Amino acid sequence: MNRPAGSHSSGSPLAHIRVVLSHTSHPGNIGAAARAMKTMGLSRLSLVNPKHFPDPQAVARAADADDILEQAQLCSSLDEALAGTVQVYALSARHRNLGPPALPAREAATDILGWAGEGEVALLFGNETAGLSNAEVQRCQRTVFIPANPDYSSLNLASAVQLLCYELRLAAFDGRPPVVTRAVPFASPPAAHEDVERFYLHLERVMISSGFLDPQRPRRLLPKLRRLFGRAELERDEINILRGLLDAVERKASPGDAPRAIPGESLGSTAK
Amino acid sequence: MNRPAGSHSSGSPLAHIRVVLSHTSHPGNIGAAARAMKTMGLSRLSLVNPKHFPDPQAVARAADADDILEQAQLCSSLDEALAGTVQVYALSARHRNLGPPALPAREAATDILGWAGEGEVALLFGNETAGLSNAEVQRCQRTVFIPANPDYSSLNLASAVQLLCYELRLAAFDGRPPVVTRAVPFASPPAAHEDVERFYLHLERVMISSGFLDPQRPRRLLPKLRRLFGRAELERDEINILRGLLDAVERKASPGDAPRAIPGESLGSTAK
Repeated sequence: MNRPAGSHSSGSPLAHIRVVLSHTSHPGNIGAAARAMKTMGLSRLSLVNPKHFPDPQAVARAADADDILEQAQLCSSLDEALAGTVQVYALSARHRNLGPPALPAREAATDILGWAGEGEVALLFGNETAGLSNAEVQRCQRTVFIPANPDYSSLNLASAVQLLCYELRLAAFDGRPPVVTRAVPFASPPAAHEDVERFYLHLERVMISSGFLDPQRPRRLLPKLRRLFGRAELERDEINILRGLLDAVERKASPGDAPRAIPGESLGSTAK
Repeated sequence: MNRPAGSHSSGSPLAHIRVVLSHTSHPGNIGAAARAMKTMGLSRLSLVNPKHFPDPQAVARAADADDILEQAQLCSSLDEALAGTVQVYALSARHRNLGPPALPAREAATDILGWAGEGEVALLFGNETAGLSNAEVQRCQRTVFIPANPDYSSLNLASAVQLLCYELRLAAFDGRPPVVTRAVPFASPPAAHEDVERFYLHLERVMISSGFLDPQRPRRLLPKLRRLFGRAELERDEINILRGLLDAVERKASPGDAPRAIPGESLGSTAK
Protein backbone atom coordinates (compact mmCIF):
# COMPACT_ATOMS: atom_id res chain seq x y z
CA MET A 1 0.00 0.00 0.00
CA ASN A 2 2.97 2.29 0.48
CA ARG A 3 3.70 2.78 -3.19
CA PRO A 4 3.95 6.39 -4.29
CA ALA A 5 1.48 7.83 -6.78
CA GLY A 6 0.14 11.10 -8.16
CA SER A 7 -1.95 13.61 -6.34
CA HIS A 8 -5.37 12.24 -7.06
CA SER A 9 -4.63 8.55 -7.27
CA SER A 10 -6.61 6.81 -4.56
CA GLY A 11 -3.79 4.28 -4.32
CA SER A 12 -1.39 6.91 -2.95
CA PRO A 13 -0.96 7.03 0.82
CA LEU A 14 -1.28 10.82 0.47
CA ALA A 15 -4.94 10.22 -0.45
CA HIS A 16 -5.53 8.69 2.98
CA ILE A 17 -4.31 11.70 4.90
CA ARG A 18 -6.78 14.36 5.97
CA VAL A 19 -5.79 17.77 7.24
CA VAL A 20 -8.06 18.87 10.10
CA LEU A 21 -8.10 22.55 11.07
CA SER A 22 -9.73 23.17 14.42
CA HIS A 23 -11.36 26.50 15.32
CA THR A 24 -9.49 28.52 12.69
CA SER A 25 -10.00 32.27 13.21
CA HIS A 26 -8.91 33.73 9.86
CA PRO A 27 -10.56 32.39 6.69
CA GLY A 28 -7.50 33.51 4.69
CA ASN A 29 -5.49 30.88 6.52
CA ILE A 30 -7.96 28.17 5.49
CA GLY A 31 -7.52 29.14 1.83
CA ALA A 32 -3.73 29.31 2.17
CA ALA A 33 -3.72 25.88 3.83
CA ALA A 34 -5.75 24.44 0.93
CA ARG A 35 -3.23 25.86 -1.53
CA ALA A 36 -0.31 24.48 0.50
CA MET A 37 -1.95 21.03 0.54
CA LYS A 38 -2.59 20.97 -3.18
CA THR A 39 0.97 21.96 -4.09
CA MET A 40 2.09 18.81 -2.30
CA GLY A 41 -0.63 16.49 -3.64
CA LEU A 42 -2.93 16.34 -0.60
CA SER A 43 -6.61 17.05 -1.08
CA ARG A 44 -8.72 16.17 1.96
CA LEU A 45 -9.50 19.07 4.26
CA SER A 46 -11.78 19.00 7.34
CA LEU A 47 -12.76 22.12 9.27
CA VAL A 48 -13.93 21.95 12.87
CA ASN A 49 -15.99 25.02 13.80
CA PRO A 50 -14.09 27.61 11.75
CA LYS A 51 -14.96 31.19 12.72
CA HIS A 52 -15.81 32.22 9.14
CA PHE A 53 -16.42 29.67 6.39
CA PRO A 54 -17.19 29.79 3.53
CA ASP A 55 -15.61 33.17 3.05
CA PRO A 56 -14.27 35.16 0.06
CA GLN A 57 -10.88 35.58 1.78
CA ALA A 58 -10.49 31.82 1.88
CA VAL A 59 -11.21 31.60 -1.84
CA ALA A 60 -8.77 34.43 -2.63
CA ARG A 61 -5.88 32.89 -0.73
CA ALA A 62 -6.58 29.38 -2.08
CA ALA A 63 -5.73 30.57 -5.63
CA ASP A 64 -6.30 27.54 -7.86
CA ALA A 65 -6.89 25.21 -4.93
CA ASP A 66 -10.52 26.29 -4.59
CA ASP A 67 -11.59 22.74 -5.43
CA ILE A 68 -10.16 21.65 -2.08
CA LEU A 69 -12.23 24.30 -0.29
CA GLU A 70 -15.36 23.19 -2.13
CA GLN A 71 -14.81 19.58 -1.09
CA ALA A 72 -13.85 20.47 2.50
CA GLN A 73 -15.79 18.71 5.23
CA LEU A 74 -17.38 21.12 7.71
CA CYS A 75 -17.63 19.50 11.18
CA SER A 76 -19.25 20.58 14.41
CA SER A 77 -16.98 18.46 16.58
CA LEU A 78 -13.47 17.07 16.53
CA ASP A 79 -14.80 13.51 16.86
CA GLU A 80 -16.81 14.00 13.67
CA ALA A 81 -13.65 15.10 11.83
CA LEU A 82 -11.65 12.16 13.19
CA ALA A 83 -14.26 9.46 12.50
CA GLY A 84 -12.76 6.49 10.70
CA THR A 85 -9.12 7.39 11.36
CA VAL A 86 -6.67 4.83 12.71
CA GLN A 87 -4.05 7.35 13.79
CA VAL A 88 -4.18 11.06 14.61
CA TYR A 89 -1.20 13.43 14.77
CA ALA A 90 -1.44 16.78 16.54
CA LEU A 91 0.79 19.56 15.32
CA SER A 92 1.98 21.30 18.45
CA ALA A 93 4.96 23.52 19.24
CA ARG A 94 4.41 22.98 22.96
CA HIS A 95 5.49 19.78 24.63
CA ARG A 96 2.75 18.67 27.02
CA ASN A 97 3.76 16.84 30.11
CA LEU A 98 0.96 14.29 29.74
CA GLY A 99 0.75 14.43 25.95
CA PRO A 100 1.56 11.66 23.47
CA PRO A 101 5.12 11.16 22.20
CA ALA A 102 6.48 14.10 20.13
CA LEU A 103 8.19 13.62 16.76
CA PRO A 104 9.99 16.19 14.59
CA ALA A 105 8.24 16.74 11.23
CA ARG A 106 10.68 14.76 9.09
CA GLU A 107 10.53 11.65 11.28
CA ALA A 108 6.79 12.06 11.67
CA ALA A 109 6.33 12.03 7.88
CA THR A 110 7.68 8.49 7.60
CA ASP A 111 5.54 7.38 10.52
CA ILE A 112 2.40 9.03 9.08
CA LEU A 113 2.90 7.41 5.68
CA GLY A 114 3.28 4.01 7.30
CA TRP A 115 -0.13 4.41 8.92
CA ALA A 116 -1.65 5.91 5.76
CA GLY A 117 -0.74 2.67 4.02
CA GLU A 118 -3.03 0.85 6.43
CA GLY A 119 -5.95 3.24 6.94
CA GLU A 120 -7.14 6.79 7.36
CA VAL A 121 -4.85 9.24 9.11
CA ALA A 122 -5.54 12.79 10.34
CA LEU A 123 -3.20 15.70 10.98
CA LEU A 124 -4.72 18.11 13.46
CA PHE A 125 -3.87 21.83 13.54
CA GLY A 126 -5.21 24.17 16.22
CA ASN A 127 -6.34 27.76 16.38
CA GLU A 128 -3.85 30.44 15.22
CA THR A 129 -3.48 32.02 18.65
CA ALA A 130 -4.39 29.39 21.22
CA GLY A 131 -3.11 26.29 19.40
CA LEU A 132 -4.66 22.97 20.40
CA SER A 133 -6.22 22.40 23.81
CA ASN A 134 -4.92 19.61 26.03
CA ALA A 135 -8.23 17.80 25.48
CA GLU A 136 -7.69 17.94 21.70
CA VAL A 137 -4.08 16.74 21.97
CA GLN A 138 -5.14 13.84 24.17
CA ARG A 139 -7.32 12.53 21.33
CA CYS A 140 -4.13 12.08 19.27
CA GLN A 141 -1.60 9.25 19.29
CA ARG A 142 1.39 11.45 18.47
CA THR A 143 2.36 15.10 18.46
CA VAL A 144 4.45 16.53 15.65
CA PHE A 145 6.66 19.58 16.04
CA ILE A 146 8.51 21.72 13.53
CA PRO A 147 12.08 22.31 14.71
CA ALA A 148 11.84 26.11 14.62
CA ASN A 149 13.98 28.91 16.06
CA PRO A 150 13.63 28.64 19.87
CA ASP A 151 13.62 32.47 20.03
CA TYR A 152 10.62 32.69 17.69
CA SER A 153 8.85 29.49 16.85
CA SER A 154 5.47 30.91 15.81
CA LEU A 155 4.84 29.65 12.28
CA ASN A 156 1.81 30.84 10.38
CA LEU A 157 -0.87 28.12 10.25
CA ALA A 158 -0.65 27.66 6.48
CA SER A 159 3.15 27.62 6.68
CA ALA A 160 2.98 24.75 9.15
CA VAL A 161 0.57 22.90 6.83
CA GLN A 162 2.94 23.59 3.93
CA LEU A 163 5.99 22.18 5.74
CA LEU A 164 4.25 19.06 6.92
CA CYS A 165 2.71 18.34 3.50
CA TYR A 166 6.13 18.90 1.89
CA GLU A 167 7.74 16.39 4.20
CA LEU A 168 4.94 13.94 3.44
CA ARG A 169 5.39 14.37 -0.30
CA LEU A 170 9.13 13.83 -0.10
CA ALA A 171 8.69 10.81 2.14
CA ALA A 172 5.98 9.38 -0.14
CA PHE A 173 8.32 9.55 -3.09
CA ASP A 174 11.39 8.52 -1.13
CA GLY A 175 12.94 11.96 -1.44
CA ARG A 176 12.55 12.04 -5.25
CA PRO A 177 9.07 13.15 -6.31
CA PRO A 178 8.47 13.59 -10.04
CA VAL A 179 9.12 17.21 -11.01
CA VAL A 180 7.69 19.58 -13.54
CA THR A 181 10.03 20.14 -16.43
CA ARG A 182 8.80 22.59 -19.01
CA ALA A 183 12.04 22.92 -20.95
CA VAL A 184 14.71 20.48 -21.92
CA PRO A 185 17.97 22.02 -20.70
CA PHE A 186 20.26 22.86 -23.57
CA ALA A 187 23.28 20.60 -23.65
CA SER A 188 25.69 19.37 -26.28
CA PRO A 189 27.63 16.11 -25.98
CA PRO A 190 30.78 16.29 -23.89
CA ALA A 191 33.94 17.17 -25.79
CA ALA A 192 36.41 14.37 -26.48
CA HIS A 193 39.83 14.50 -24.86
CA GLU A 194 41.67 15.17 -28.13
CA ASP A 195 39.34 18.08 -28.99
CA VAL A 196 39.98 19.62 -25.60
CA GLU A 197 43.76 19.22 -26.03
CA ARG A 198 43.66 20.84 -29.49
CA PHE A 199 41.74 23.71 -27.95
CA TYR A 200 44.48 24.16 -25.33
CA LEU A 201 47.14 24.17 -28.10
CA HIS A 202 45.16 26.76 -30.02
CA LEU A 203 44.65 28.84 -26.90
CA GLU A 204 48.33 28.72 -26.05
CA ARG A 205 49.25 29.79 -29.58
CA VAL A 206 46.95 32.83 -29.38
CA MET A 207 48.21 33.69 -25.91
CA ILE A 208 51.75 33.69 -27.24
CA SER A 209 51.05 35.47 -30.52
CA SER A 210 49.11 38.17 -28.69
CA GLY A 211 52.04 38.74 -26.36
CA PHE A 212 50.00 37.74 -23.30
CA LEU A 213 52.08 34.66 -22.61
CA ASP A 214 55.86 34.80 -22.58
CA PRO A 215 57.06 31.21 -23.11
CA GLN A 216 60.23 32.08 -21.17
CA ARG A 217 58.18 33.18 -18.15
CA PRO A 218 54.89 31.29 -18.36
CA ARG A 219 53.77 32.13 -14.76
CA ARG A 220 51.53 29.04 -14.53
CA LEU A 221 48.96 30.71 -16.77
CA LEU A 222 48.22 27.59 -18.78
CA PRO A 223 47.79 25.25 -15.80
CA LYS A 224 45.39 27.79 -14.29
CA LEU A 225 43.33 27.92 -17.47
CA ARG A 226 43.36 24.13 -17.70
CA ARG A 227 42.03 24.03 -14.15
CA LEU A 228 39.20 26.43 -15.03
CA PHE A 229 38.11 24.68 -18.24
CA GLY A 230 38.60 21.27 -16.68
CA ARG A 231 36.17 22.16 -13.92
CA ALA A 232 33.65 23.37 -16.48
CA GLU A 233 33.62 19.98 -18.24
CA LEU A 234 33.54 21.46 -21.74
CA GLU A 235 30.91 20.38 -24.25
CA ARG A 236 31.61 19.83 -27.95
CA ASP A 237 29.53 22.86 -28.89
CA GLU A 238 31.46 25.05 -26.48
CA ILE A 239 34.81 23.87 -27.89
CA ASN A 240 33.59 24.87 -31.35
CA ILE A 241 32.63 28.33 -30.10
CA LEU A 242 35.96 28.83 -28.30
CA ARG A 243 37.97 27.58 -31.29
CA GLY A 244 35.95 29.85 -33.61
CA LEU A 245 36.74 32.81 -31.35
CA LEU A 246 40.46 31.95 -31.34
CA ASP A 247 40.40 31.67 -35.15
CA ALA A 248 38.76 35.10 -35.41
CA VAL A 249 41.28 36.66 -33.06
CA GLU A 250 44.15 35.23 -35.13
CA ARG A 251 42.63 36.43 -38.41
CA LYS A 252 42.11 39.92 -37.00
CA ALA A 253 45.72 40.12 -35.81
CA SER A 254 47.18 38.89 -39.14
CA PRO A 255 44.54 39.49 -41.84
CA GLY A 256 46.68 38.14 -44.65
CA ASP A 257 47.55 34.81 -43.05
CA ALA A 258 45.85 31.59 -43.93
CA PRO A 259 44.59 29.68 -40.86
CA ARG A 260 47.30 27.49 -39.43
CA ALA A 261 46.69 23.90 -38.49
CA ILE A 262 46.75 22.52 -34.94
CA PRO A 263 48.73 19.27 -34.71
CA GLY A 264 46.46 16.26 -35.04
CA GLU A 265 43.67 17.81 -37.03
CA SER A 266 42.99 18.66 -40.65
CA LEU A 267 42.14 22.24 -41.45
CA GLY A 268 38.53 23.22 -40.85
CA SER A 269 37.69 20.37 -38.54
CA THR A 270 36.70 22.77 -35.77
CA ALA A 271 33.69 23.81 -37.79
CA LYS A 272 32.23 20.33 -37.92
CA MET B 1 32.85 28.24 9.55
CA ASN B 2 30.18 25.61 9.11
CA ARG B 3 29.42 25.16 12.77
CA PRO B 4 25.77 25.60 13.71
CA ALA B 5 24.71 28.42 16.03
CA GLY B 6 21.69 30.37 17.20
CA SER B 7 19.61 32.70 15.11
CA HIS B 8 21.48 35.89 15.73
CA SER B 9 24.97 34.59 16.19
CA SER B 10 27.13 36.10 13.50
CA GLY B 11 29.17 32.89 13.51
CA SER B 12 26.24 30.90 12.11
CA PRO B 13 26.19 30.31 8.36
CA LEU B 14 22.50 31.27 8.50
CA ALA B 15 23.67 34.83 9.30
CA HIS B 16 25.40 34.99 5.91
CA ILE B 17 22.32 34.19 3.90
CA ARG B 18 20.16 37.00 2.59
CA VAL B 19 16.67 36.52 1.20
CA VAL B 20 16.08 38.79 -1.81
CA LEU B 21 12.50 39.38 -2.95
CA SER B 22 12.30 40.93 -6.40
CA HIS B 23 9.32 43.03 -7.53
CA THR B 24 6.93 41.65 -4.91
CA SER B 25 3.33 42.75 -5.63
CA HIS B 26 1.58 42.09 -2.32
CA PRO B 27 3.06 43.65 0.85
CA GLY B 28 1.35 40.92 2.91
CA ASN B 29 3.68 38.42 1.30
CA ILE B 30 6.71 40.46 2.36
CA GLY B 31 5.53 40.36 5.96
CA ALA B 32 4.74 36.65 5.76
CA ALA B 33 8.19 35.98 4.28
CA ALA B 34 9.83 37.90 7.16
CA ARG B 35 7.90 35.77 9.66
CA ALA B 36 8.86 32.57 7.82
CA MET B 37 12.54 33.61 7.88
CA LYS B 38 12.55 34.43 11.58
CA THR B 39 10.93 31.12 12.57
CA MET B 40 13.94 29.41 11.00
CA GLY B 41 16.60 31.77 12.34
CA LEU B 42 17.29 33.87 9.21
CA SER B 43 17.16 37.62 9.51
CA ARG B 44 18.51 39.42 6.43
CA LEU B 45 15.88 40.54 3.96
CA SER B 46 16.45 42.62 0.80
CA LEU B 47 13.62 44.00 -1.33
CA VAL B 48 14.14 44.94 -4.97
CA ASN B 49 11.51 47.42 -6.14
CA PRO B 50 8.55 46.11 -4.13
CA LYS B 51 5.21 47.50 -5.32
CA HIS B 52 4.19 48.68 -1.82
CA PHE B 53 6.67 48.97 1.02
CA PRO B 54 6.61 49.91 3.85
CA ASP B 55 2.96 48.93 4.22
CA PRO B 56 0.67 48.10 7.17
CA GLN B 57 -0.24 44.75 5.56
CA ALA B 58 3.41 43.73 5.67
CA VAL B 59 3.59 44.58 9.37
CA ALA B 60 0.36 42.70 10.11
CA ARG B 61 1.48 39.49 8.40
CA ALA B 62 4.98 39.68 9.91
CA ALA B 63 3.51 39.21 13.41
CA ASP B 64 6.49 39.37 15.79
CA ALA B 65 9.01 39.43 12.93
CA ASP B 66 8.55 43.17 12.40
CA ASP B 67 12.21 43.68 13.38
CA ILE B 68 13.18 41.93 10.14
CA LEU B 69 10.99 44.32 8.13
CA GLU B 70 12.54 47.32 9.89
CA GLN B 71 16.05 46.14 9.04
CA ALA B 72 15.15 45.15 5.46
CA GLN B 73 17.33 46.63 2.73
CA LEU B 74 15.33 48.46 0.07
CA CYS B 75 17.10 48.28 -3.32
CA SER B 76 16.44 49.90 -6.67
CA SER B 77 18.25 47.20 -8.64
CA LEU B 78 19.03 43.52 -8.37
CA ASP B 79 22.76 44.22 -8.58
CA GLU B 80 22.49 46.44 -5.51
CA ALA B 81 20.79 43.60 -3.59
CA LEU B 82 23.41 41.09 -4.70
CA ALA B 83 26.47 43.25 -4.00
CA GLY B 84 29.09 41.38 -2.00
CA THR B 85 27.63 37.91 -2.54
CA VAL B 86 29.80 35.01 -3.67
CA GLN B 87 26.93 32.76 -4.74
CA VAL B 88 23.32 33.45 -5.74
CA TYR B 89 20.50 30.90 -5.89
CA ALA B 90 17.31 31.61 -7.84
CA LEU B 91 14.13 29.94 -6.67
CA SER B 92 12.37 28.87 -9.83
CA ALA B 93 9.72 26.28 -10.59
CA ARG B 94 10.51 26.54 -14.30
CA HIS B 95 13.55 24.86 -15.76
CA ARG B 96 15.25 27.24 -18.22
CA ASN B 97 17.04 25.79 -21.16
CA LEU B 98 19.99 28.15 -20.78
CA GLY B 99 19.69 28.58 -17.03
CA PRO B 100 22.16 27.46 -14.37
CA PRO B 101 21.99 23.93 -12.92
CA ALA B 102 18.78 23.17 -10.97
CA LEU B 103 18.83 21.59 -7.49
CA PRO B 104 15.92 20.35 -5.37
CA ALA B 105 15.52 22.32 -2.13
CA ARG B 106 16.97 19.70 0.20
CA GLU B 107 20.15 19.24 -1.84
CA ALA B 108 20.39 22.98 -2.40
CA ALA B 109 20.34 23.61 1.36
CA THR B 110 23.58 21.71 1.87
CA ASP B 111 25.16 23.50 -1.07
CA ILE B 112 24.00 26.92 0.15
CA LEU B 113 25.37 26.34 3.65
CA GLY B 114 28.72 25.33 2.23
CA TRP B 115 28.97 28.67 0.43
CA ALA B 116 27.61 30.57 3.45
CA GLY B 117 30.58 29.23 5.38
CA GLU B 118 32.85 31.08 2.94
CA GLY B 119 31.01 34.31 2.19
CA GLU B 120 27.73 36.06 1.58
CA VAL B 121 24.99 34.11 -0.20
CA ALA B 122 21.67 35.31 -1.64
CA LEU B 123 18.43 33.45 -2.31
CA LEU B 124 16.43 35.22 -4.97
CA PHE B 125 12.62 34.99 -5.19
CA GLY B 126 10.64 36.54 -8.06
CA ASN B 127 7.29 38.23 -8.43
CA GLU B 128 4.19 36.28 -7.29
CA THR B 129 2.72 36.03 -10.77
CA ALA B 130 5.58 36.35 -13.24
CA GLY B 131 8.34 34.69 -11.22
CA LEU B 132 11.89 35.59 -12.15
CA SER B 133 12.87 36.86 -15.58
CA ASN B 134 15.50 35.02 -17.61
CA ALA B 135 17.81 38.01 -17.10
CA GLU B 136 17.42 37.70 -13.32
CA VAL B 137 18.02 33.94 -13.37
CA GLN B 138 21.14 34.38 -15.48
CA ARG B 139 22.67 36.44 -12.66
CA CYS B 140 22.50 33.35 -10.45
CA GLN B 141 24.87 30.38 -10.22
CA ARG B 142 22.17 27.85 -9.36
CA THR B 143 18.41 27.49 -9.52
CA VAL B 144 16.53 25.80 -6.69
CA PHE B 145 13.18 24.10 -7.13
CA ILE B 146 10.67 22.76 -4.66
CA PRO B 147 9.55 19.29 -5.72
CA ALA B 148 5.84 20.14 -5.83
CA ASN B 149 2.79 18.44 -7.31
CA PRO B 150 3.27 18.57 -11.12
CA ASP B 151 -0.49 19.19 -11.47
CA TYR B 152 -0.32 22.28 -9.27
CA SER B 153 3.10 23.55 -8.35
CA SER B 154 2.21 27.15 -7.52
CA LEU B 155 3.40 27.74 -3.98
CA ASN B 156 2.65 31.01 -2.28
CA LEU B 157 5.79 33.22 -2.12
CA ALA B 158 6.04 33.12 1.68
CA SER B 159 5.45 29.35 1.64
CA ALA B 160 8.41 28.94 -0.68
CA VAL B 161 10.55 31.13 1.61
CA GLN B 162 9.34 29.05 4.58
CA LEU B 163 10.30 25.73 2.97
CA LEU B 164 13.72 26.85 1.87
CA CYS B 165 14.55 28.43 5.25
CA TYR B 166 13.33 25.25 6.97
CA GLU B 167 15.65 23.11 4.87
CA LEU B 168 18.49 25.51 5.63
CA ARG B 169 17.84 25.33 9.37
CA LEU B 170 17.74 21.54 9.33
CA ALA B 171 20.89 21.36 7.25
CA ALA B 172 22.67 23.92 9.48
CA PHE B 173 22.00 21.78 12.53
CA ASP B 174 22.58 18.49 10.76
CA GLY B 175 18.90 17.53 10.96
CA ARG B 176 18.71 18.12 14.73
CA PRO B 177 18.16 21.79 15.58
CA PRO B 178 17.67 22.62 19.25
CA VAL B 179 13.97 22.66 20.09
CA VAL B 180 11.79 24.60 22.45
CA THR B 181 10.70 22.53 25.40
CA ARG B 182 8.40 24.34 27.79
CA ALA B 183 7.41 21.32 29.85
CA VAL B 184 9.30 18.35 31.17
CA PRO B 185 7.32 15.35 30.03
CA PHE B 186 5.93 13.43 32.94
CA ALA B 187 7.64 10.06 33.34
CA SER B 188 8.23 7.70 36.19
CA PRO B 189 11.09 5.17 36.26
CA PRO B 190 10.45 1.96 34.36
CA ALA B 191 8.91 -0.86 36.34
CA ALA B 192 11.15 -3.75 37.37
CA HIS B 193 10.53 -7.17 35.92
CA GLU B 194 9.32 -8.64 39.21
CA ASP B 195 6.82 -5.81 39.75
CA VAL B 196 5.42 -6.39 36.29
CA GLU B 197 5.10 -10.11 36.91
CA ARG B 198 3.33 -9.51 40.23
CA PHE B 199 0.94 -7.23 38.39
CA TYR B 200 0.17 -10.01 35.89
CA LEU B 201 -0.50 -12.43 38.75
CA HIS B 202 -2.80 -9.92 40.39
CA LEU B 203 -4.56 -9.23 37.11
CA GLU B 204 -5.05 -12.94 36.47
CA ARG B 205 -6.49 -13.42 39.95
CA VAL B 206 -9.03 -10.64 39.39
CA MET B 207 -9.90 -11.96 35.94
CA ILE B 208 -10.63 -15.36 37.45
CA SER B 209 -12.45 -14.12 40.54
CA SER B 210 -14.62 -11.87 38.41
CA GLY B 211 -15.55 -14.80 36.20
CA PHE B 212 -14.03 -13.16 33.13
CA LEU B 213 -11.31 -15.78 32.75
CA ASP B 214 -12.14 -19.49 32.91
CA PRO B 215 -8.85 -21.25 33.76
CA GLN B 216 -10.16 -24.33 31.93
CA ARG B 217 -10.66 -22.31 28.72
CA PRO B 218 -8.20 -19.40 28.92
CA ARG B 219 -8.65 -18.38 25.22
CA ARG B 220 -5.18 -16.73 25.15
CA LEU B 221 -6.50 -13.78 27.12
CA LEU B 222 -3.44 -13.48 29.31
CA PRO B 223 -0.87 -13.66 26.49
CA LYS B 224 -2.84 -10.94 24.68
CA LEU B 225 -2.80 -8.69 27.74
CA ARG B 226 0.90 -9.39 28.26
CA ARG B 227 1.45 -8.32 24.66
CA LEU B 228 -0.43 -5.07 25.22
CA PHE B 229 1.29 -4.11 28.49
CA GLY B 230 4.64 -5.28 27.22
CA ARG B 231 4.37 -2.92 24.27
CA ALA B 232 3.47 -0.06 26.60
CA GLU B 233 6.70 -0.53 28.62
CA LEU B 234 5.04 0.03 31.97
CA GLU B 235 6.43 2.57 34.41
CA ARG B 236 6.57 2.03 38.19
CA ASP B 237 3.93 4.68 38.77
CA GLU B 238 1.58 3.00 36.32
CA ILE B 239 2.04 -0.40 37.98
CA ASN B 240 1.05 1.18 41.28
CA ILE B 241 -2.08 2.67 39.72
CA LEU B 242 -3.06 -0.62 38.08
CA ARG B 243 -2.40 -2.64 41.24
CA GLY B 244 -4.40 -0.11 43.26
CA LEU B 245 -7.30 -0.50 40.85
CA LEU B 246 -7.13 -4.30 41.10
CA ASP B 247 -7.10 -4.03 44.91
CA ALA B 248 -10.16 -1.82 44.83
CA VAL B 249 -12.01 -4.16 42.51
CA GLU B 250 -11.25 -7.08 44.82
CA ARG B 251 -12.38 -5.18 47.92
CA LYS B 252 -15.60 -4.15 46.22
CA ALA B 253 -16.37 -7.75 45.22
CA SER B 254 -15.65 -9.19 48.68
CA PRO B 255 -15.94 -6.32 51.16
CA GLY B 256 -15.17 -8.45 54.20
CA ASP B 257 -11.95 -10.00 52.92
CA ALA B 258 -8.54 -8.83 53.92
CA PRO B 259 -6.24 -8.11 50.98
CA ARG B 260 -4.51 -11.25 49.81
CA ALA B 261 -0.81 -11.39 49.12
CA ILE B 262 0.77 -11.88 45.72
CA PRO B 263 3.60 -14.43 45.84
CA GLY B 264 6.94 -12.73 46.27
CA GLU B 265 5.81 -9.56 48.01
CA SER B 266 4.88 -8.50 51.50
CA LEU B 267 1.47 -6.92 51.96
CA GLY B 268 1.25 -3.26 51.15
CA SER B 269 4.35 -3.13 48.97
CA THR B 270 2.34 -1.86 46.00
CA ALA B 271 1.86 1.45 47.75
CA LYS B 272 5.57 2.19 48.01
